[in-house]
Amino acid sequence: MTRPPGDLAHIAHAELLTPTPEESLRFFEDLFGMEVEAREGQSVFLRGFGDYGRYSLKLTEAPLPGLGHVAIRAWDEDSLQRRVAAIEASGRGEGWSDGDLGHGPAYRFTDPDGHRFEVFYEQERYVPPAHLRPVLKNVPQRFTGRGAAVKRIDHVNLLTRDVRADRVFAEQALGYRLFERIELDDGTEAGAWLSLSIAAHELIYVADHHRVGSRLHHLAFWVDTREELLRAADLFLDADVPIEAAPSRHAVAGGFFLYVFEPGGNRVEVTSGGYLVYDPDFIPVVWTEAERHRGQAWGVKTVESFHTYGTPDVGGEPTGPPIPPTSEVPR
Amino acid sequence: MTRPPGDLAHIAHAELLTPTPEESLRFFEDLFGMEVEAREGQSVFLRGFGDYGRYSLKLTEAPLPGLGHVAIRAWDEDSLQRRVAAIEASGRGEGWSDGDLGHGPAYRFTDPDGHRFEVFYEQERYVPPAHLRPVLKNVPQRFTGRGAAVKRIDHVNLLTRDVRADRVFAEQALGYRLFERIELDDGTEAGAWLSLSIAAHELIYVADHHRVGSRLHHLAFWVDTREELLRAADLFLDADVPIEAAPSRHAVAGGFFLYVFEPGGNRVEVTSGGYLVYDPDFIPVVWTEAERHRGQAWGVKTVESFHTYGTPDVGGEPTGPPIPPTSEVPR
Amino acid sequence: MTRPPGDLAHIAHAELLTPTPEESLRFFEDLFGMEVEAREGQSVFLRGFGDYGRYSLKLTEAPLPGLGHVAIRAWDEDSLQRRVAAIEASGRGEGWSDGDLGHGPAYRFTDPDGHRFEVFYEQERYVPPAHLRPVLKNVPQRFTGRGAAVKRIDHVNLLTRDVRADRVFAEQALGYRLFERIELDDGTEAGAWLSLSIAAHELIYVADHHRVGSRLHHLAFWVDTREELLRAADLFLDADVPIEAAPSRHAVAGGFFLYVFEPGGNRVEVTSGGYLVYDPDFIPVVWTEAERHRGQAWGVKTVESFHTYGTPDVGGEPTGPPIPPTSEVPR
Amino acid sequence: MTRPPGDLAHIAHAELLTPTPEESLRFFEDLFGMEVEAREGQSVFLRGFGDYGRYSLKLTEAPLPGLGHVAIRAWDEDSLQRRVAAIEASGRGEGWSDGDLGHGPAYRFTDPDGHRFEVFYEQERYVPPAHLRPVLKNVPQRFTGRGAAVKRIDHVNLLTRDVRADRVFAEQALGYRLFERIELDDGTEAGAWLSLSIAAHELIYVADHHRVGSRLHHLAFWVDTREELLRAADLFLDADVPIEAAPSRHAVAGGFFLYVFEPGGNRVEVTSGGYLVYDPDFIPVVWTEAERHRGQAWGVKTVESFHTYGTPDVGGEPTGPPIPPTSEVPR
Repeated sequence: MTRPPGDLAHIAHAELLTPTPEESLRFFEDLFGMEVEAREGQSVFLRGFGDYGRYSLKLTEAPLPGLGHVAIRAWDEDSLQRRVAAIEASGRGEGWSDGDLGHGPAYRFTDPDGHRFEVFYEQERYVPPAHLRPVLKNVPQRFTGRGAAVKRIDHVNLLTRDVRADRVFAEQALGYRLFERIELDDGTEAGAWLSLSIAAHELIYVADHHRVGSRLHHLAFWVDTREELLRAADLFLDADVPIEAAPSRHAVAGGFFLYVFEPGGNRVEVTSGGYLVYDPDFIPVVWTEAERHRGQAWGVKTVESFHTYGTPDVGGEPTGPPIPPTSEVPR
Repeated sequence: MTRPPGDLAHIAHAELLTPTPEESLRFFEDLFGMEVEAREGQSVFLRGFGDYGRYSLKLTEAPLPGLGHVAIRAWDEDSLQRRVAAIEASGRGEGWSDGDLGHGPAYRFTDPDGHRFEVFYEQERYVPPAHLRPVLKNVPQRFTGRGAAVKRIDHVNLLTRDVRADRVFAEQALGYRLFERIELDDGTEAGAWLSLSIAAHELIYVADHHRVGSRLHHLAFWVDTREELLRAADLFLDADVPIEAAPSRHAVAGGFFLYVFEPGGNRVEVTSGGYLVYDPDFIPVVWTEAERHRGQAWGVKTVESFHTYGTPDVGGEPTGPPIPPTSEVPR
Repeated sequence: MTRPPGDLAHIAHAELLTPTPEESLRFFEDLFGMEVEAREGQSVFLRGFGDYGRYSLKLTEAPLPGLGHVAIRAWDEDSLQRRVAAIEASGRGEGWSDGDLGHGPAYRFTDPDGHRFEVFYEQERYVPPAHLRPVLKNVPQRFTGRGAAVKRIDHVNLLTRDVRADRVFAEQALGYRLFERIELDDGTEAGAWLSLSIAAHELIYVADHHRVGSRLHHLAFWVDTREELLRAADLFLDADVPIEAAPSRHAVAGGFFLYVFEPGGNRVEVTSGGYLVYDPDFIPVVWTEAERHRGQAWGVKTVESFHTYGTPDVGGEPTGPPIPPTSEVPR
Repeated sequence: MTRPPGDLAHIAHAELLTPTPEESLRFFEDLFGMEVEAREGQSVFLRGFGDYGRYSLKLTEAPLPGLGHVAIRAWDEDSLQRRVAAIEASGRGEGWSDGDLGHGPAYRFTDPDGHRFEVFYEQERYVPPAHLRPVLKNVPQRFTGRGAAVKRIDHVNLLTRDVRADRVFAEQALGYRLFERIELDDGTEAGAWLSLSIAAHELIYVADHHRVGSRLHHLAFWVDTREELLRAADLFLDADVPIEAAPSRHAVAGGFFLYVFEPGGNRVEVTSGGYLVYDPDFIPVVWTEAERHRGQAWGVKTVESFHTYGTPDVGGEPTGPPIPPTSEVPR
């Protein structure tokens, strides 16, 4: 394996669109336990207690739920310029913006399926207000334990009409490493788990059977223990949060999951566990169609909606098979 | 072993005295996660989310911290009358009161060291207000997950100048079973763990080296998992709650503990684990002085204050050895 | 509520029949982590590390899997005689046996559906061999941590053609308390959760849609934490143990469960959690048919086999609706 | 901050010396739950169930306990050559070896305090024997759950007479990033926490008050949950393993710890938790002397031996203050 360029460090934040901004805000504040760091225009900026930046979730009012954009931070200015050059060369670049709350100039682009991304380097460090100042100096914020008390953004899972195209773009233009993927019997790719670090997944693409494009599967926020997921499930149960998939362990990537729907209709996950990839020569794991039918790690059957629902929701039956993989794209 | 009379069911609530009622209330509400069920006079009545009665903690303003009283519920009216007769026969009875918020007529008495108790049978069942109504019908209240989110009162630990006298009174007049005790090399008893049920301890007496009498060692509230204690420790750390003993496992009774001081100065515990006693012929475990010096289960040395501090705090050095055991009392 | 007689203390052991004794023994020893305490004839006697008696599982070779018998220990000799009198009066008594390994004379009987039971009082206390001697004197045995490392027997779940008849027999003849039950829209009872102590369930009856009778739904063994169930699931996954239901939380009784099949074909559970019933006047919770369709606590759909499979397995489709409740039996 | 070179990937294994090879082997196999992958000469090679390489612990018979060497794997051949050049330039290089079991040519060197290291790139991938083949293809080995069931090597903590010199060497020659350190009131460094990845610590240096040099503080092996540490403590208690520090949470680096002594006298840790560093511009946390006296995260006082004992053990009182930091070394 070629050593990855390592220019990009991590997903700094994601923007989530919601048609019910007040209810969604209450959900992320009271039930996910995030803190409101700022408000601006139609957006509220929220953070987990372990995020070192000012926020990891930008919640924005919009007619339909779904993904606003994903923002990735580069290691330094040179790294940023190298990635911008690669993105431009791919023909998917859209140009620079002046930045947004808490970070500097950002270069905008889309992935082949059309999801909006940006990369930047300059970022403000979070300075907690007095009531959120922690006792230990090696953590960014006090632990309040409210709701599920998510610690930080963990990963973004995007629905795509062409897993292979998006996966290859993430590898080649952005420098992601591929750790796991699903390949159906006909050779099409049904899922790809990618990372910029040793964490098992930070960006995931899964096949969308609807043709609308640029849809979101889910945003995931981290907690340190599986017990916190079990506790969150009890909390969500009594708060009437729709639980799509109760806590259990994924086969792919091995993480512990809990999927719910926030009031705006977006699927969000509380996640923990999984593995770290220390092997420089890690060979991506390829799962077959048959293996996927086995269900999750402990045999739990995946609920049907997990394979079909995304935001914006296009309702009804899938409008057709996913667009065939662009066979020209090198693997 | 003689089968215990089983007339008394469990400690229904305890009254805690505090010179800082506002701060103590905020502590039990925000950090222990209890709900305020009622207020009356100088008292606030609080409950854990799993208490089936209206409250398990009566918090009362007083010049000094310490124990107000311990209230034990009987199995039924006949059982109550039998215990009242036994208490009266012991000479420690004080007579009936009309009851208090949420329960009917109560018979008052003191244990040999002078701690105030009452027994009653009639009790109102908790009816949650709309915002605390649970989704599942087999639990009394919604789980809000606020703070340490204690579930219910678990046990009461009282300091006493004469462990043996109090222990024997609890066994003979109240019908408690003795599960564990500490006997020093000189034959005096230094601690006794007693229960009305199969739970390993519900009432504990430990030797008080001060002569003031009737002091409280701590009140303990239950959580279902050890993980909740670890989480509570993180929470208390960042909330500047003085932690006397970080989470670890007791040797005696085997429970998992976390001891802190509430603002009024009383020691309170978040507890979990331990064992259930199914054996009808359980032989009480007797620990020697040497065994107690071994520390807690995993070798953690017990902090010094744990052996000396109680409320009300009498400060300074112990004023003398504990009063010798009343040798007349049969064991 | 009438105070229960309290003559019986707990289920001391259950006998499990297996057509594959060697494989079943390896399962309970290596994967459930139990210790072999003795062997006699076609039986092996096994214990969890927290059982105070010599064993809680008698594993016996037989042509078909299923339940051998359930053995309940009485509080004392007088209590035993009272229960024997009640059982005889019910017409279900079968007479005394000389006892079995580790316990004295036992009175045999069957419940209305025909499951075999016995009650006894005299029992040997477990004395660990040198290699299983614990460090702390308040536990019966060293913790070896092998496999799932179950602590003790927890409950027995029996399939029955007539839930109401068995439930009423358990209440009236044996003195069990009923804590929860399921009542279908047509008034038949579909399940009953009963206990001799404050633990939420020790004996469960659920409706059997097959007419063979006396079948076993499952035996359950306790671990102290939910984390141990998650760990056990990983262990069972890699040991090729068939997992019927991955770890999750029950709605009824609230316990955390993990169901697997031992090599002999019997369903066995690793269980934890649930609640303790301190209320002397606890009103049994009644679940409706609609509520049961909601699935488990966090919405997990119950796997179909859970409603139909029992041992001995009668295969194929149910042979008819459960026998209608004997309407004469008082509720 | 300058972006780190990132040439080295991680600590692949550590060699531990033991005067009691049979007892030490039994400890790591039965109680740490590691698998014996190979034996060669006076060494046994052991692995955690999650190690992707063949082993992470080389256990070697020797007259005294202590560290044999630490072996670090490079990202690729070019990266290796760059690091070798940097090490040679530092004057601490010792030349190439032909490699060892499971890996190719290794370049040997020492850190300023004299601890032995090697770097290499070529490494065999682990191929499990039939009885250790996992069910899921994205993990290297079956989970057996034996003993503490450690997953992989996590970090190495070395005692040094000059924290600053070793810390700077690790940063400059090896490319480690510094995340936390302790600076005493007199300006000397008392500890440094370094990493090659986003994990909070992989290589730690702490001040040695003895002048013998090249001593080991401890080796740490990872488990995924804090619950596994609590379980391990129970296991070690009953197996008579000397527990130096019961499970609790570190202030520095925030990890959950459990320290014990293996039979050879070396301190070993079971570790979990901590944090991941996603910030490219992370500013190393500097702890003062006063802050260190606060104890661990929840106020637990650090046991005295933790500050003085290392292997080989030089006994008695420290022979003098640590050698003053080499003031020439740039920070």
